[in-house]
Amino acid sequence: MSRLFMFEKPLGMRDTLPDLYEMKNNARTAMSSEMKRWGYQFIETPALEYYETVGTASAILDQQLFKLLDHEGHTLVLRPDMTAPIARIAASKLLKDNMPIRLAYSANVYRAQQREGGRPAEFEQIGLECIGDGTISADGESIALIISTLKAAGLEDFQLSVGHIGFVRTFFRQILGTEARVNALTRFLYEKNYVGYRMHVESLALSSIDKQRLLQFLKLRGGHEVIEEAFSLMENDYGKVALKELQSLWGIITDYEQESAVKFDLTLVSHMSYYTGILYEVYAGNVGFPIGSGGRYDLLLEKFGKSSSATGFAIRIDRLLESLGMNWPREQANCIVFSPERRKEAYSLAQEQRKKGIKVVLQDINGVQDIDACSSHYDDITFLVGKAKEAVK
Amino acid sequence: MSRLFMFEKPLGMRDTLPDLYEMKNNARTAMSSEMKRWGYQFIETPALEYYETVGTASAILDQQLFKLLDHEGHTLVLRPDMTAPIARIAASKLLKDNMPIRLAYSANVYRAQQREGGRPAEFEQIGLECIGDGTISADGESIALIISTLKAAGLEDFQLSVGHIGFVRTFFRQILGTEARVNALTRFLYEKNYVGYRMHVESLALSSIDKQRLLQFLKLRGGHEVIEEAFSLMENDYGKVALKELQSLWGIITDYEQESAVKFDLTLVSHMSYYTGILYEVYAGNVGFPIGSGGRYDLLLEKFGKSSSATGFAIRIDRLLESLGMNWPREQANCIVFSPERRKEAYSLAQEQRKKGIKVVLQDINGVQDIDACSSHYDDITFLVGKAKEAVK
Repeated sequence: MSRLFMFEKPLGMRDTLPDLYEMKNNARTAMSSEMKRWGYQFIETPALEYYETVGTASAILDQQLFKLLDHEGHTLVLRPDMTAPIARIAASKLLKDNMPIRLAYSANVYRAQQREGGRPAEFEQIGLECIGDGTISADGESIALIISTLKAAGLEDFQLSVGHIGFVRTFFRQILGTEARVNALTRFLYEKNYVGYRMHVESLALSSIDKQRLLQFLKLRGGHEVIEEAFSLMENDYGKVALKELQSLWGIITDYEQESAVKFDLTLVSHMSYYTGILYEVYAGNVGFPIGSGGRYDLLLEKFGKSSSATGFAIRIDRLLESLGMNWPREQANCIVFSPERRKEAYSLAQEQRKKGIKVVLQDINGVQDIDACSSHYDDITFLVGKAKEAVK
Repeated sequence: MSRLFMFEKPLGMRDTLPDLYEMKNNARTAMSSEMKRWGYQFIETPALEYYETVGTASAILDQQLFKLLDHEGHTLVLRPDMTAPIARIAASKLLKDNMPIRLAYSANVYRAQQREGGRPAEFEQIGLECIGDGTISADGESIALIISTLKAAGLEDFQLSVGHIGFVRTFFRQILGTEARVNALTRFLYEKNYVGYRMHVESLALSSIDKQRLLQFLKLRGGHEVIEEAFSLMENDYGKVALKELQSLWGIITDYEQESAVKFDLTLVSHMSYYTGILYEVYAGNVGFPIGSGGRYDLLLEKFGKSSSATGFAIRIDRLLESLGMNWPREQANCIVFSPERRKEAYSLAQEQRKKGIKVVLQDINGVQDIDACSSHYDDITFLVGKAKEAVK
């Protein structure tokens, strides 16, 4: 093993050192407390799942899965998201009562990366799922709660964009006819490649009216007035059902008094293929990727043998911290350096300070090679060395 | 995929449902707070490490490692313990200052199981490492702190047994001569198979005096007086150095006033092969396996190119909870069931209660199939259905 290789970590794997750890911990605690106040219950699922069950139910590309074989020859995957494992648990254990259940999690997920310098292959998501409630109220609650959760973490400057995958696909199907043509056009939306979208539309064998409708579709981004504009583009009823859902949703957002954080983007689609209805993404001003996203997925539970509606969201803690600027206050730590004959005195002093909530390192002077480095590392340093004074004893 | 297989989890993998999750969370928070008060800083390392680096440095048997291949053909392992990854970080980044560093972690580790119904293949350890301090003070601190940490979690009935791997191996080497013979006899101690040990000793070609010494060795368990007894069994100086360390340690434990929790067991050895000095295990009355263990490992850092002394411990949270009886109080949750026209009123009431720290589920009545199941699930249920009363409006 070469000297360089000794310290290396696998592609996309990162260490979290103390300052960042505490920032993550503070953000996680603030957010999970808010989720709990709204009655969501936290659970934990295994890091490894069967590929045949959770692996295939997840919406993550196969090439991004970390796979391994168990002793019996089954393929296992490191969980690529938490929605599929929670669907497994909900379907098998928790939906017997025929009542909605509200579950939350804070967990690392794993997505293999192909190149160095790219995205992390392991990152933490905090999120929740409301399963068994098909009402728009559940969509509204999840949107109100992702806003409330991000605010609890201290995020101020962010925007939530709401769309409806049912609207997009119905509208495209009206005009384009086949699923293949719908998927081809939708791909440009995934990639947010609007130039490509326009060129693709121009190349299609369609009437100029239909081309115009597909181009006008791209403008359905803004305040709740875009819902009205979308109605004028639609022809059949199912698409109107989707738009009426968005109208109801806007009413709920108004009840929650969170209008200022919400915009509509009816061109929004997701790489998570299991979404079926309302979906949303959160962007903060200074981060290039969404820091959170969510939506309704009414067909996923069927893969686990239980038909049930569901909606939920996930927040990427790394991107949230990037957006927060990582400036939580660093906590103070003191150091008491002692010689062995004054250990008991040093311990008493340390315990006194610790009881006050101060972090105190107790350090035998014989264990320190560089006393200056040690001194400069702590906010306060006390020396209890040499013979104890009579008075102190 | 068969219906049964749909819900299955890989061998040794478990879900953690809400009540157990909160118990774990409470115990983890109480313990990490105590560790932080003593100046230990928490870090996180990747779930995947290179087999060639951290995998081989860990003391876990090869057959217990979860292995997979990355895109470049390197073998990766799911971390089987946290000591080796922390040694990697300490050696590469943190020991430049030539001062002791104190790191802590709370993380899941992974050990493949061969049979169903056996031990978990994924479990959480909370622990710490004091790196760069070769004094007995560091050993004493880690013992005082594991006791203090377990007490912080609410554990009362437990016993810490201290031994010294240097003493065991030196004593055996004196009598048995070769490493192979030392290892053969040590194996019985690993397995705590004292009958096998005695039979093995009887079978050896040794003088009756040496056999007697090896049998007397088994009795070196009890209060600090066993250190004196051990002196009488030793012949050469290195073994006496080990015993003098244990004498100093007893003085430190006395300074910390934690004599009542500590016994000596000079027959103690560990399956963690990297220990070099003082080591210890914690047992609670009602749990068959150690809930925590630790010790000194002064040679591990060399595997990462930096010679440095180190000591640390790990607590198994699952075993700790088993010992605690898992009886943390369940937290209260209320439910407000509303019809959409009274959503805003329901939300105001919910926020009022949430501000008081009460967990409140807000549930649209149209999302509930079985209202009785819903009612019985919550501590308190409020219905805000039908038209709002004038007075409430």
